[in-house]
Amino acid sequence: MVDQHVAGANFKPTKRNRNTHGMINHAALNFASARLNGLMALYARPGRGRSVEIELDRKHSHRVVDFVRCSYLGLDNHPRIVEGAIEAVQKYGALHWSCARTRLNFNLIGELEETLSALFSARVITYSSVLAANMGALPLLASGHLTNQRKPLMVFDRLAHATLAFHKATLAEETEVVTIAHNDMSALEALCREHGNVAYICDGVYSMGGSAPIEELRVLQKRYSLFLYIDDAHGISLFGKSGEGFARSKMAGALGERTIIAASLGKGFGASGGMLMLGTPEQEELFRSFAIAHAFSASPNLAAVGAALASARLHRTKELVALQTRLRDRLALFDSLIATGLEGSLPIRMLMIGDDLTTIGAAKAVLKDGCYVSAVFFPTVAKGRSGLRICPTAGHSVEEIEALCTTLKAILPDIMVSPPDKR
Amino acid sequence: MVDQHVAGANFKPTKRNRNTHGMINHAALNFASARLNGLMALYARPGRGRSVEIELDRKHSHRVVDFVRCSYLGLDNHPRIVEGAIEAVQKYGALHWSCARTRLNFNLIGELEETLSALFSARVITYSSVLAANMGALPLLASGHLTNQRKPLMVFDRLAHATLAFHKATLAEETEVVTIAHNDMSALEALCREHGNVAYICDGVYSMGGSAPIEELRVLQKRYSLFLYIDDAHGISLFGKSGEGFARSKMAGALGERTIIAASLGKGFGASGGMLMLGTPEQEELFRSFAIAHAFSASPNLAAVGAALASARLHRTKELVALQTRLRDRLALFDSLIATGLEGSLPIRMLMIGDDLTTIGAAKAVLKDGCYVSAVFFPTVAKGRSGLRICPTAGHSVEEIEALCTTLKAILPDIMVSPPDKR
Repeated sequence: MVDQHVAGANFKPTKRNRNTHGMINHAALNFASARLNGLMALYARPGRGRSVEIELDRKHSHRVVDFVRCSYLGLDNHPRIVEGAIEAVQKYGALHWSCARTRLNFNLIGELEETLSALFSARVITYSSVLAANMGALPLLASGHLTNQRKPLMVFDRLAHATLAFHKATLAEETEVVTIAHNDMSALEALCREHGNVAYICDGVYSMGGSAPIEELRVLQKRYSLFLYIDDAHGISLFGKSGEGFARSKMAGALGERTIIAASLGKGFGASGGMLMLGTPEQEELFRSFAIAHAFSASPNLAAVGAALASARLHRTKELVALQTRLRDRLALFDSLIATGLEGSLPIRMLMIGDDLTTIGAAKAVLKDGCYVSAVFFPTVAKGRSGLRICPTAGHSVEEIEALCTTLKAILPDIMVSPPDKR
Repeated sequence: MVDQHVAGANFKPTKRNRNTHGMINHAALNFASARLNGLMALYARPGRGRSVEIELDRKHSHRVVDFVRCSYLGLDNHPRIVEGAIEAVQKYGALHWSCARTRLNFNLIGELEETLSALFSARVITYSSVLAANMGALPLLASGHLTNQRKPLMVFDRLAHATLAFHKATLAEETEVVTIAHNDMSALEALCREHGNVAYICDGVYSMGGSAPIEELRVLQKRYSLFLYIDDAHGISLFGKSGEGFARSKMAGALGERTIIAASLGKGFGASGGMLMLGTPEQEELFRSFAIAHAFSASPNLAAVGAALASARLHRTKELVALQTRLRDRLALFDSLIATGLEGSLPIRMLMIGDDLTTIGAAKAVLKDGCYVSAVFFPTVAKGRSGLRICPTAGHSVEEIEALCTTLKAILPDIMVSPPDKR
């Protein structure tokens, strides 16, 4: 591969924003502490429902109810999805072909992309991960090929996912890149007014709670032809009649030529991989030729494709609505027992603690009581905003939610939760 | 996720090296032409051996022998590897868990990483793709945490793979980045002498033919403490007693603290995903905490893990050596019939043509005769260096290689191949 960089062209260090060295030095102690307390990088076998058997050593394991995984509808061990994965590999006698998708594809992936396109009323391309989908999409957006051959000003929400924010310097080689405060619609509108040609990059549902104001974004889109790139990995399947997700379900009709939604084939969807929902045939042709993840990396493997096809079929049944409803019920139950300031239909709860070591101690106490929750601290969240990240799902029983909340209530006085505030 | 970018910090466009807009405009016509000629984005079912059934429409298909896929040992439809994928999913009743690897892992992936570490005498971490492995590794290398807390000068080979070169601007936020001519060891030595602390980023086996001069690089490493980051995706499994690959097989003993090898779990290895071979426990801890693909993206799914475990077992048998030998025989047969200037044990052949449309015409003629080869042109190779990329594998029969070469010979006078020269 000849990249687009001129041979011999040099980069002087810019040192503008990125500081991996400092980030690691700041976070290493917390990681070490969390690891010592048995909270990081656990290895487990699936148990019944949402439980997992955590391996303590070769002979002993510890059964806990897991609230870490983002399988919001509890689909990641659904028998029909698991069976879909197995059947695809069996039928084709292969798992993976090592070649660019611009060359050769299993025809089952074509069937999957047609199915998802119909399901979500968009032009869907699938990827091995959302990371790969985002990496492929952002440079094409920066190039101006999606915005009438004019390079847009690229505006990032400060909390846009790590796999989006990672590429800011790469994009700045092509166009101007700006970061604004979280959900700061007046800053965004001011930039739209000033520049005329703006692309906004944000999450649909944010991985640490909260969401993008889709309706307001659509108003700005109408008024200023704003381009929207929304990573809805945590919103897919949970919202909408066909499980089209948090962002897509708020957009009636065609996606149009100024909106791209990235989403997961894992998480709520229950399979494995990532996808992009595009609006026009021209966009699709562009992505299928030039997205780096399409031209220079691997497609999702056949097990992922088979699982995703099975999940897409399930999305057409009443079971989807039942699972969406059950998720809302479980969230409401959780909220009735523990207040986090993140009530409502969004799937993620954050119990803010603030102090890193107290957070780690709290997660350890919860684990001892039989529930696994995420202790999150910098760089996953901002410094001073550490806490417990909890994912109640449709797969949890009422008793499991109640037991977790009883544990949390018992330790609340010790961890001195700060009053929940807005992100 | 809070990224390491300061909120509100802006990037003015640098326009130094990257030009996606111009690249697309230059290449779009070739892509359209190749697509019109039925050469791009084919959809197929696996046939016997290396053949595939290309879907022409819902009712008709065209059986061709494939020379596009990089399954150099023909393992991508090996019954034991396929069975390994199926058994893992069956046994666990799940395909994929949606959570960061810093939280929860299937214990089977722990088993896989232990197995691969023993097989390749390195500390192996697996990823959903080589793209994800590279994206995680390069910023950690730039940070200086792998080079005694001093940020290295990062030197890229001009032909380093697209998934490496993509990140130059991101890395330049942390340290200085330089690109040198392909395999230019004297330029590299001059930089080592000048800077003292250099990391060199290259491929082991290059995807369009050729390889890195590993022995010379090791001499520079000894002399100047050069750090080597080698993407050996196309070399894994093909070389070495345990299939440790082109690069690792030339490094006796421990990997040490100044070498990282990225490799594929697909391609020669025959499963799906990517991996890193690290040298020290400190490196492993760093990557398991801070690599973006580890902390913020998905692991390979269980089908990939099961397939890779089966392939690792196969790497311990005599079958591996037999397949490596058969690959060399097939390559020697090809070279005895068609001269490309790329003779030897490296797996990729490039028949240089030079003119884009002639290349597309040649690939079309070959396809009509029952063989699928890749028509490659800018941006996959440099402008004016288009040609046919051909992957003979251990899975091809003697007759299939002979038939391809007969076809190629017949069209050689028409495509006026330029004399092969050195890349």
